[in-house]
Amino acid sequence: IKRKTNSAEEYVEGILSGNRTMLSKAVTLVESSLPEHHELAQSIIEKCLPHSGNSIRVGITGVPGAGKSTSIDSFGMHLLKNGHKLAVLAIDPSSERSKGSILGDKTRMERLSVEQDAFIRPSPSAGSLGGVARKTREIIILCEAAGFDYIFVETVGVGQSEIAVHSMVDFFLLIQLSGTGDELQGIKRGIMEMADGIVINKADGDNIAKAKIAKRQLQNALHLFPLPESGWTPEVLTYSGYYNIGIEEIWDMIDRYIKFVKDNGYFYQKRNEQSKYRMYETINEHLRNSFYNDPEIAALLLKLEDDLLHARKSSYAAAKEALERYSQLQK
Amino acid sequence: IKRKTNSAEEYVEGILSGNRTMLSKAVTLVESSLPEHHELAQSIIEKCLPHSGNSIRVGITGVPGAGKSTSIDSFGMHLLKNGHKLAVLAIDPSSERSKGSILGDKTRMERLSVEQDAFIRPSPSAGSLGGVARKTREIIILCEAAGFDYIFVETVGVGQSEIAVHSMVDFFLLIQLSGTGDELQGIKRGIMEMADGIVINKADGDNIAKAKIAKRQLQNALHLFPLPESGWTPEVLTYSGYYNIGIEEIWDMIDRYIKFVKDNGYFYQKRNEQSKYRMYETINEHLRNSFYNDPEIAALLLKLEDDLLHARKSSYAAAKEALERYSQLQK
Repeated sequence: IKRKTNSAEEYVEGILSGNRTMLSKAVTLVESSLPEHHELAQSIIEKCLPHSGNSIRVGITGVPGAGKSTSIDSFGMHLLKNGHKLAVLAIDPSSERSKGSILGDKTRMERLSVEQDAFIRPSPSAGSLGGVARKTREIIILCEAAGFDYIFVETVGVGQSEIAVHSMVDFFLLIQLSGTGDELQGIKRGIMEMADGIVINKADGDNIAKAKIAKRQLQNALHLFPLPESGWTPEVLTYSGYYNIGIEEIWDMIDRYIKFVKDNGYFYQKRNEQSKYRMYETINEHLRNSFYNDPEIAALLLKLEDDLLHARKSSYAAAKEALERYSQLQK
Repeated sequence: IKRKTNSAEEYVEGILSGNRTMLSKAVTLVESSLPEHHELAQSIIEKCLPHSGNSIRVGITGVPGAGKSTSIDSFGMHLLKNGHKLAVLAIDPSSERSKGSILGDKTRMERLSVEQDAFIRPSPSAGSLGGVARKTREIIILCEAAGFDYIFVETVGVGQSEIAVHSMVDFFLLIQLSGTGDELQGIKRGIMEMADGIVINKADGDNIAKAKIAKRQLQNALHLFPLPESGWTPEVLTYSGYYNIGIEEIWDMIDRYIKFVKDNGYFYQKRNEQSKYRMYETINEHLRNSFYNDPEIAALLLKLEDDLLHARKSSYAAAKEALERYSQLQK
C-alpha cells in the first residue's frame, strides 16, 4: 500500500482548521529522527509560527507519586468546562516511550483522554534533553496554531528537565504532597525559586491538617528566596485532585498571575527572553557538540585528563593543546 | 635605565627558595596583559607546577560589611602563630584595581600586612570573571611553589565570583553577620549549598544573644539542603574577628574537615575534578568566544534577535542561520 504524502501546505491548512489527525501526523513528523521528515517538519513549523503564541503555557512538575496525572485530569476538565482547549505535553528525556513515560499511559487521565478538546501527547522519545526540549517546543507551536489555548508541559521532576520546561512556559506549577512531616526535605534543589505557585495535593479527609502544616512550611521556606523578577509573590494552595477540591482556586491564581504579568509587561519580556535563550542554547549546544563529538578530540581529552590527574600539565596548557588540535582538524 | 630581565629559570629558582621579590614579580607577569609577558609567565607556571598543590586552600566570602578584612587578619595571625605561611588572594572581577577592591587597601589587614610569612595580593585587575579566575589559579601555583602552605581566596560576594572561588579551594567559608533579625534574607541564592562552614562575626558584647539566634536559624536552614558530596555536615560557628574570640574553633573545624575529606578520599577527588573542570571551562570559553567575538556574527545575532522579537523566525531557524554563517567564515 502506498501511503499518501501530504505537502507542508496541506498539513498547515489541516492544523489551522483544527484537524486533529493532521496535527497528530505533523507532531509525529517533528518527533521523527528520519532526515527526510526533518525538512518537511521544519517547513510546517515555520508556516505555523505566525499563528502561534496565543496560549497560556503552564509547566507542571512534582515528584513521582504526587498525583500529577490525576491532577492534570482535574485541571483539564475544569478548563474544558470553561470553554478552553487543552494540549498536554511532557518532557521526559530519560524514559523509554513505551513504559515508564508519564503520559505513556493515557488511561491515567481517564476523563481528559476521551475529550475532543483535549490533545494528549507523551514525551518525545528518549534522547538528549536539548533535543527533547526542542521537539516539545516545536509541538507547542503546532498545538497553538491548531487553536489550543492552554498548553500543559509536564515533567517527572528528575534531572535538568525542569529547567527546560521552565524555559518554555508562562507559569511554573509545583505539585507537592503533604504528610511526610518535613515537607522541605523532598523538594529538589533549585525548584523552589522556579515555582510561580506551589499546590499541595491530597488535602482531603484526614490529610487536611497535614496539608495545612505543609502549606505553612512552604510559605516560610519561600521567604528564603528573593522576590522573582516577575514581581509576583509565589502562592501556596492546597487541593485534592482526586476529590476535585480547590481546583478553581488554582486556576484563579494562574489567571491572576497572567493578568499581573501582562499588566507589568513581564509576560511579553519573558517570552522574548525565552526565544532568545533557545536560539543561544541551540548555538552553544552545536558549538560544544562539534568539538566534543569529534572522535580524535575525545581520545585526546582522555589522555589530557590523565595528564591532569598526575599533574603533568596545567589545566590551561591541556585546554590549549586540545583547542590547537581542533583548530588543525577544522582546516 | 635598562631593567634587567630574568629568565624563567631564574624566576623559578627565586620562587622555590622563597624569595618574595621574585614571587611578586612573577605574579605581576601572570597578571600582565602584554603578550610578551604571557609566554614567560606560562613557562614559570609550568615549571612551578610540580612544586604546587601542598597547601590548604580556603575560599572566604561574605557580604560587604561582614568584616572580612578584620577576620582574615585574625585568621592569618592565628595561622602564622602556629608556624604556617599564608598567601591571601582575591577574586573581584567587577572593581577597578585602585579603589573599591577588597584587598586594594592592605592597611585593612593591619597585623598581617607587615608579616614576612604573609603574602597579600589584591585581585587581578578588572576583566572577565573567567580571566580573573584563571590568573588567580595560576598565582596559587606560584605561591604554593614558594612555600605558602595556606592560601586564602577572598571574594566580595557579588556576581558569579563565588562559583569561581569554590572551584579552586578545598574549604569554602561563608562569613555572616547577625543582628538583622531575619538572617536568611541576606544570604545570596546558591551560597548555602557551597559552604563547608558558616561563621557568624561580631559575636561579642551585646551581640552574643543575636549571634546565637542567627546560628540556630542558619543551622535550621542548612537542613533544607541535601548532605554535600563530601559527606561533611557543614557547621555553623560564632566568633569575633575584632576581639579575637572563637578563631581557634574555626581553624579546628577546618582542620577536622581536611582530615575528614583526606580520610574518605574526597579531598583528592575534588582537586582532580577541579583541574578537569578548569580544562573544560577553558575550552568552552574559547569555543564560545571564537563564535560570539566574531564581529560579523555579533551583527547577525542582533538582527536575529529582532527577528525573534517580531516572530519572523523560530529560535532554531535563527540559530541555524548563525551557525551556517560561522561555518562559512571559518573556511
